[in-house]
Amino acid sequence: MIILGIDPGVGIVGYGALSVGRGAGRGHISAIGHGVITTPPNTDICIRLEEIYSDMLTLADKFHPDAAAVEELFFVNNTTTGIPVAEARGVILLALTRKKIPVFEYTPMQVKTAVTGYGKATKKQMMDQVTLRLGLPETPKPDDAADALAIAMCHAFTSAGSMASFRRGI
Amino acid sequence: MIILGIDPGVGIVGYGALSVGRGAGRGHISAIGHGVITTPPNTDICIRLEEIYSDMLTLADKFHPDAAAVEELFFVNNTTTGIPVAEARGVILLALTRKKIPVFEYTPMQVKTAVTGYGKATKKQMMDQVTLRLGLPETPKPDDAADALAIAMCHAFTSAGSMASFRRGI
Repeated sequence: MIILGIDPGVGIVGYGALSVGRGAGRGHISAIGHGVITTPPNTDICIRLEEIYSDMLTLADKFHPDAAAVEELFFVNNTTTGIPVAEARGVILLALTRKKIPVFEYTPMQVKTAVTGYGKATKKQMMDQVTLRLGLPETPKPDDAADALAIAMCHAFTSAGSMASFRRGI
Repeated sequence: MIILGIDPGVGIVGYGALSVGRGAGRGHISAIGHGVITTPPNTDICIRLEEIYSDMLTLADKFHPDAAAVEELFFVNNTTTGIPVAEARGVILLALTRKKIPVFEYTPMQVKTAVTGYGKATKKQMMDQVTLRLGLPETPKPDDAADALAIAMCHAFTSAGSMASFRRGI
């Protein structure tokens, strides 16, 4: 199955697609693509939202994911700048839904726990685990794309019982 | 011209459409429709967002607005419940943009000031002014629809120089 991980944002949306083996290849996981959608700063939010929506539809057509994993948002402070991020997340969820892709949501702590085994892992520990577990020659760039791969990994490790052996590093 | 006012939400989105006179009818303003889009509680946010998006497209086709006025969001507390509202606002802005309707944003204080002349007006003062100025037989229901009419009125009163005479009550 294909899992598309999304790290939501307004200026930068990270995405990362994983192929997860079934049957004989069960437990095998590999990155099949990652990158970012960017929108220009100081631009009407409506134009930025439309760009994100349109690019999300394109990604859905490119990867044909069986599932999407999208990071949840939490705002404690600085909520005014957080609002456009949530607006962007809304159009991301809409694009996935209109493409009939089931959406799963994970908190940052769930992602860290699934990927590193530790809910308060540092950014570097996360990046190292993403690189190692996906067998990549180097850490995916930019960070938003690596984060999106981590979110997709979180879904692979936590959603399917068949993946539990992988999660425990067996 | 037709102005569509929107009071964003996830469970209830208020809308109100106004016709604003030009030329000989300059300054004349009348309500041509109002109501709410509702989505069921305890339902997947993706389904609710898709419903709001689809209903917004329908409203755009029904009223053919020349402009849309959408209330801005501010969260100080309780930001977790605010996130779905911002996500809904994102798909509302997207629907309007995809229908090529220019979107204008107003803060609650701007709306109150434009409609009542006082930025800290009470809910009742607002409702009374909406009813009076639109010459309606009674206060529009529910409140979300009346709020949306107020937002549309704010755009009518503040955006066009031609409307200034109305704003001053002349």
